[in-house]
Amino acid sequence: MLRMSTLLLRTLRDDPADAEVASHRLLVRAGYVRRISAGIYSWLPLGYLTYRNIERVVREEMDAAGFQEVHFPALLPRDPYEQTNRWSEYGPDLFRLKDRKGNDFLLGPTHEEMFTLMVKGEYSSYKDLPLSIYQIQTKYRDEPRPRSGIIRGREFVMKDSYSFDIDDAGLEISYQKHRDAYVKTFKRLGLDFNIVSAMSGAMGGSKSEEFLAPCPTGEDTYVLCEKCGFAANVEAMITKVDAYAGQTPPAVEVFDSPNTPTIDSLVELYNGLFSEPITAANTLKNVLVMVDGVATSILVPGDREVDLKRLGANLPGAQDIRIFEEEDFAKFPGLVKGYIGPQDAAAQGIKVYADPRIVIGSHWITGANAKDKHARFVTHGRDFTVEAFVEAVEVKAGDLCPTCATPVVIDRAIEIGHIFQLGRKYAQALGLTVLDQNGKSQVVTMGSYGIGVSRAVAAIAEQTHDEIGLNWPREIAPADIHLVAAGKDDSIFEFANTLATDLESAGMRVLFDDRRDASPGVKFKDAELIGIPYIVVVGKSLQDGEIEFRVRKSGEKSQIPSGSAVATIVAAIAG
Amino acid sequence: MLRMSTLLLRTLRDDPADAEVASHRLLVRAGYVRRISAGIYSWLPLGYLTYRNIERVVREEMDAAGFQEVHFPALLPRDPYEQTNRWSEYGPDLFRLKDRKGNDFLLGPTHEEMFTLMVKGEYSSYKDLPLSIYQIQTKYRDEPRPRSGIIRGREFVMKDSYSFDIDDAGLEISYQKHRDAYVKTFKRLGLDFNIVSAMSGAMGGSKSEEFLAPCPTGEDTYVLCEKCGFAANVEAMITKVDAYAGQTPPAVEVFDSPNTPTIDSLVELYNGLFSEPITAANTLKNVLVMVDGVATSILVPGDREVDLKRLGANLPGAQDIRIFEEEDFAKFPGLVKGYIGPQDAAAQGIKVYADPRIVIGSHWITGANAKDKHARFVTHGRDFTVEAFVEAVEVKAGDLCPTCATPVVIDRAIEIGHIFQLGRKYAQALGLTVLDQNGKSQVVTMGSYGIGVSRAVAAIAEQTHDEIGLNWPREIAPADIHLVAAGKDDSIFEFANTLATDLESAGMRVLFDDRRDASPGVKFKDAELIGIPYIVVVGKSLQDGEIEFRVRKSGEKSQIPSGSAVATIVAAIAG
Repeated sequence: MLRMSTLLLRTLRDDPADAEVASHRLLVRAGYVRRISAGIYSWLPLGYLTYRNIERVVREEMDAAGFQEVHFPALLPRDPYEQTNRWSEYGPDLFRLKDRKGNDFLLGPTHEEMFTLMVKGEYSSYKDLPLSIYQIQTKYRDEPRPRSGIIRGREFVMKDSYSFDIDDAGLEISYQKHRDAYVKTFKRLGLDFNIVSAMSGAMGGSKSEEFLAPCPTGEDTYVLCEKCGFAANVEAMITKVDAYAGQTPPAVEVFDSPNTPTIDSLVELYNGLFSEPITAANTLKNVLVMVDGVATSILVPGDREVDLKRLGANLPGAQDIRIFEEEDFAKFPGLVKGYIGPQDAAAQGIKVYADPRIVIGSHWITGANAKDKHARFVTHGRDFTVEAFVEAVEVKAGDLCPTCATPVVIDRAIEIGHIFQLGRKYAQALGLTVLDQNGKSQVVTMGSYGIGVSRAVAAIAEQTHDEIGLNWPREIAPADIHLVAAGKDDSIFEFANTLATDLESAGMRVLFDDRRDASPGVKFKDAELIGIPYIVVVGKSLQDGEIEFRVRKSGEKSQIPSGSAVATIVAAIAG
Repeated sequence: MLRMSTLLLRTLRDDPADAEVASHRLLVRAGYVRRISAGIYSWLPLGYLTYRNIERVVREEMDAAGFQEVHFPALLPRDPYEQTNRWSEYGPDLFRLKDRKGNDFLLGPTHEEMFTLMVKGEYSSYKDLPLSIYQIQTKYRDEPRPRSGIIRGREFVMKDSYSFDIDDAGLEISYQKHRDAYVKTFKRLGLDFNIVSAMSGAMGGSKSEEFLAPCPTGEDTYVLCEKCGFAANVEAMITKVDAYAGQTPPAVEVFDSPNTPTIDSLVELYNGLFSEPITAANTLKNVLVMVDGVATSILVPGDREVDLKRLGANLPGAQDIRIFEEEDFAKFPGLVKGYIGPQDAAAQGIKVYADPRIVIGSHWITGANAKDKHARFVTHGRDFTVEAFVEAVEVKAGDLCPTCATPVVIDRAIEIGHIFQLGRKYAQALGLTVLDQNGKSQVVTMGSYGIGVSRAVAAIAEQTHDEIGLNWPREIAPADIHLVAAGKDDSIFEFANTLATDLESAGMRVLFDDRRDASPGVKFKDAELIGIPYIVVVGKSLQDGEIEFRVRKSGEKSQIPSGSAVATIVAAIAG
């Protein structure tokens, strides 16, 4: 039993200065967590009980799915991460340190290398597979902007699993098993979530899905079709296009267009010059970027912007993408700023990609590659060609669902899980092979599956809190019942104390507010803030043989006879 | 249920090259742990199950004692450790690193600062105390010589508690509560242990006790009285002495003693010169040391050596102690090497301490502070005085128990717990004060209590293993029953499979060796190595309606009827 008189808990009246999101504000005010440093937190007793409930649910569901629990260190030697090139690739997000002998170590941000090497150390035959192993472990990432409390910390706990299979068909089965286990886990945690496609063209068709918990302050933006349920993160949104169905356009026609520094000014000029009116969507923007040192033009409709993150996710192998700078233009003197068109990009040594809306056969108003000149009827396939289509424009609410063509909405969410067909990258780099039926060595294929365990505390708080406080699902709450002794009479405290003991004997976890020096008002406010699902009040009406039973979530209150309190409460909670 | 056919486990026939102790050899061979780097290990499934059983027992006992669980980060900012001076005092054992902004961090070796600051953040009144809080958490220490596997690692798990009280009487109660909880915990873990006094004079009477698990390969040496049970670590051993009961000695008599470079040669010369024979124990050795830059003479009987570690623990406040070097002698020209006596030490500016055996009134043969001269009848209190007595000589088996005067033995052990009255050091440094009954600010007094949780896996393995393998107490074992299907017939596997399921339904945790490609001999060897307490064999005798039940520890075997196997096994295990 938890007793408020001795519990290490002091609720706060005021919001902490650094709390950007509701969950963090309430977790601090209700005495669940405390900040130690940017992105680094301590857990107070109520917080750690809640955290451990989540950890237990996650572990039970992983075990139920037949995955085996292992545990790796957080302090890891450099060598395996050197072999996969992640020691340097990880950049400044990796915490690096040296031991007393000068050997390089890192604090594990993820453990692909360790999982791969563990299996390599034990297994050697296809008969040993499939295997799925997991750990629940502290991770370290030196986030540039740790924020939102425990949602994005620099030290946090993840459940990370990896599956090992001999072939793609096996991986598909392991992936589905994890997907099913994740659905069960998040349902038990009481989370609302969407499973969102995170498969981008660049990843070559291996499946990748995110579990997103919708929440207005979430850091992740995703696309949702409210009609058919299609959901994708922005990088993985697929543009819905139809083949060009118009007439074959006339030959390219160049026209004078001085003083048209913007798309709007070009549209205005055009609509003055020609009879059929256009909008920005009829013009073609040539966005010049450097992709790993290669000059590249991304063609998008004039009413759209390029989303560099989306572009990066969809250009196979691209590492470093940036917008053209002055010095880049200097290297391509053929480029006439403000009047660029794709017509002779190839001749100038510029690679060209197009947004899927620039369908073959469609014609555009674009630069004529000459000062103060634009051209119309510039037709894809006739007047210019592209390397490939690429999903690169900023996704907007109202874009069409690729599945059912309904306008989509853009929603915000917290990423609570990610499942991913990792493939052979790590097995290849670290030499994880097994012999197949024919005695031939085969590189193992892997899946990678993560749940943010400490983050889930905040995600659940975000989704379940209300204006007066936290509001936990029962399985996650630090107790089932918050029992308040409200009054001054000894008889109230004696009755409440016995009731608390009896409820614990009946299998209920009780937080008993047995404080003598706190007023009923303070106790009620604390109970609402702390968010335990059921509140029982022993107060003045005890003299009439009644106590009060409250449901925290609905606010519903009822008087119950004090003589049969335990049975009535247990029955009410069991529902 | 664990199934050998799918369990991530490959036992090893051969001892690992780096295994110095039995526990580590067996934990590696039986597939419990794997080495990642010096002092850094991964847990395989069986190992992590075992570890988690220990963690559970520790947590249950801490909770039962009313201690509250909290959790701190491992990655900690420098500032609090700067305030207590531990950032630098900790030396090279501390893992230090910088974040991306260049801020200093450390990996927590212990969390005194964090516990103190947490309580300071929440509490302000004597009414809030007493409080005991704990965490089970990963610690980091860059040991100069990590060894013995998980017994002394660089990354390891500790349960660390701290108690907070307003006064010494409160601390005494909190200390005793922890002591009681530790006794219960280690008993449940099946550990043999001694509670050993670690209280040294220098610590000013605050209590400190170690829980030591005797084991021949242990790193800790301690003194044990097999008669009365007195136990102390070597630093805390108390010398048993009687007051001087002889006659008042004659005046000091100087005699020629050329060529007596050793105690033995002095004894030989003396016994030639004088009628009453002596031994080395009648001579007085003047061991010169520098204690934080102060020249100090430690007087000990000639048959004893000075133990610098013991001396350090017993000289209040001493930080740096070293034996005199040539340059130190050069600063004290009055010192005649080989002929030093305490008679005029004070005049020379040398501080003198004496072993308790140099009782007041006793007389000694020692140097006469003149070349080739010794003196006899040199009497403590008459011819020389000392600053204080100090426990500084090497403890030997056969020294007398301070409690019952029986000769003690010297034993080896693994330290599994340590409880310690820490006092006000950290509260003072970090400003943890509360208001007392009179509204006056008081510095809180603290106790510090640790259990090596991951180390306990190895300590239990050390104490319980035998020549054929591990041998776990049931509560700690990764399963209750190791069920072996021994044979080739499908009927054996089918029966065993049903039995495994039925045993699990009856509440038993079963490891089922369902491998089709392993011989009975291999399976039996694995069962012995893995060390689950009960082994059930379903083999050829199944056709006669019998299966075998083995007790791993005693080797006892019995045939039981297959028809009533579940009931018989459950009854046998329940004892």
